[in-house]
Amino acid sequence: MVREGSYTGTTSGVCVGYVQANLAILPQKYAEDFLKYAQRNPKPCPILECTKPGDPTTHIVAKNANIATDLPGYRVYRNGVAADTTSDISKYWRDDLVGFLIGCSYSFEYALMEAGLEIRCITDKNFGWAYETNIPCAPSKYFSGPVIASMRPFPADKIDLVYEITSKLPHAHGTPIYHGDPSKIGVSLDKPYCGDLPRIEPGEVPVFWGCGVTPQRAIEFAAPDLAITHDAGHMFITDVRESDLETHLAKFWL
Amino acid sequence: MVREGSYTGTTSGVCVGYVQANLAILPQKYAEDFLKYAQRNPKPCPILECTKPGDPTTHIVAKNANIATDLPGYRVYRNGVAADTTSDISKYWRDDLVGFLIGCSYSFEYALMEAGLEIRCITDKNFGWAYETNIPCAPSKYFSGPVIASMRPFPADKIDLVYEITSKLPHAHGTPIYHGDPSKIGVSLDKPYCGDLPRIEPGEVPVFWGCGVTPQRAIEFAAPDLAITHDAGHMFITDVRESDLETHLAKFWL
Repeated sequence: MVREGSYTGTTSGVCVGYVQANLAILPQKYAEDFLKYAQRNPKPCPILECTKPGDPTTHIVAKNANIATDLPGYRVYRNGVAADTTSDISKYWRDDLVGFLIGCSYSFEYALMEAGLEIRCITDKNFGWAYETNIPCAPSKYFSGPVIASMRPFPADKIDLVYEITSKLPHAHGTPIYHGDPSKIGVSLDKPYCGDLPRIEPGEVPVFWGCGVTPQRAIEFAAPDLAITHDAGHMFITDVRESDLETHLAKFWL
Repeated sequence: MVREGSYTGTTSGVCVGYVQANLAILPQKYAEDFLKYAQRNPKPCPILECTKPGDPTTHIVAKNANIATDLPGYRVYRNGVAADTTSDISKYWRDDLVGFLIGCSYSFEYALMEAGLEIRCITDKNFGWAYETNIPCAPSKYFSGPVIASMRPFPADKIDLVYEITSKLPHAHGTPIYHGDPSKIGVSLDKPYCGDLPRIEPGEVPVFWGCGVTPQRAIEFAAPDLAITHDAGHMFITDVRESDLETHLAKFWL
């Protein structure tokens, strides 16, 4: 449906139980350095798959998907500035482009829900709350910038369970980077990086995860002539079930 | 020599090539929560071994070493406040104490030197430079506080090599958490957490690693009735060679 253009909405709560992925497409000149940046910052940027230069086909997270057509929304950057949003980037495709599919926190929401936890952004039909923190990424030659974090509130007595479940999914951002007083990571909850204001009930604690939006900020800093990412909340939906993610990836990497 | 009390100095540059470890000893009541805290913050707090309650004997990092006598310097905390420094904690030992041996950045210095890099704190006969950052640890029930980071300067064109080498030693703090402008992680180089002022030459970049002093700050926050750590720079020297660390640990954990 996405490839045919009949679905262009956000993917929050869509194909529940299947791993979703953030996307970053960069000219080959920047690709090796971006990989370095991602490896230095595995919590916000867990790499699931890199495509071959010029070839938009995926082989690991989905067989023969096309990253140029199979996301419901893209953001196109020129020299680090968002210049277009579109649902098909075929016209921007070049022979030197390399795609990076990056783990997404949507991929642990199902696991948390199966344990009886409420995912507030799904309850409230929001595509998620993200904040710019004051924690900097470990930089590479071209890429740097702050860690962007997604936030979900949970009751204080469920925090341990949240860490336990997400620790088994390092390629979906793994455990939180922090929970508790948001000001300690430079966050005001009423100033989201994107999205609406969150609803937090009494007795709940805000829990923060490294977010796949982080490389978008890094692309603004690196300012390559062309870069393409997913649009906020418009992820690549893989063929991999959440519960199979780590074993599936290990098959390709061993 | 340490056990007999004939060596009570710092262990920087001592037994070069052998893994050294930070120490945290806590009452059993706090032990499970401390392990949780450490697992949530693996870069500053990579756990190498936990001892059994009441038994100071090590089995993994050294056969039959005694954590109550085999460090050249200890710091004793009462209710979160440093109350004593000593080279033998036998008189403080209790049946409910659990010891945690935590990876130490001294353990990657040899690997970096073998690659031809200068370790400034060794050149300058300093036991190391550490700074309190504005990055908070992911808290547990009792333990929280900022990440303390050790700093070593390296020439800008050697940074990639530094990441590459340290990526192979995750239990010695692994890759840096950051390099570059210290103010971005809330650090002024002229205000060390402990140690003297560092010497940084033109063209060098400060590189920061999660540091095993971090749990000492967390112990100040948790304020258990008794806690014992290594004294700054006075580490536990293990029987494990740096190059064997990861494979050695894997033998016990598989």
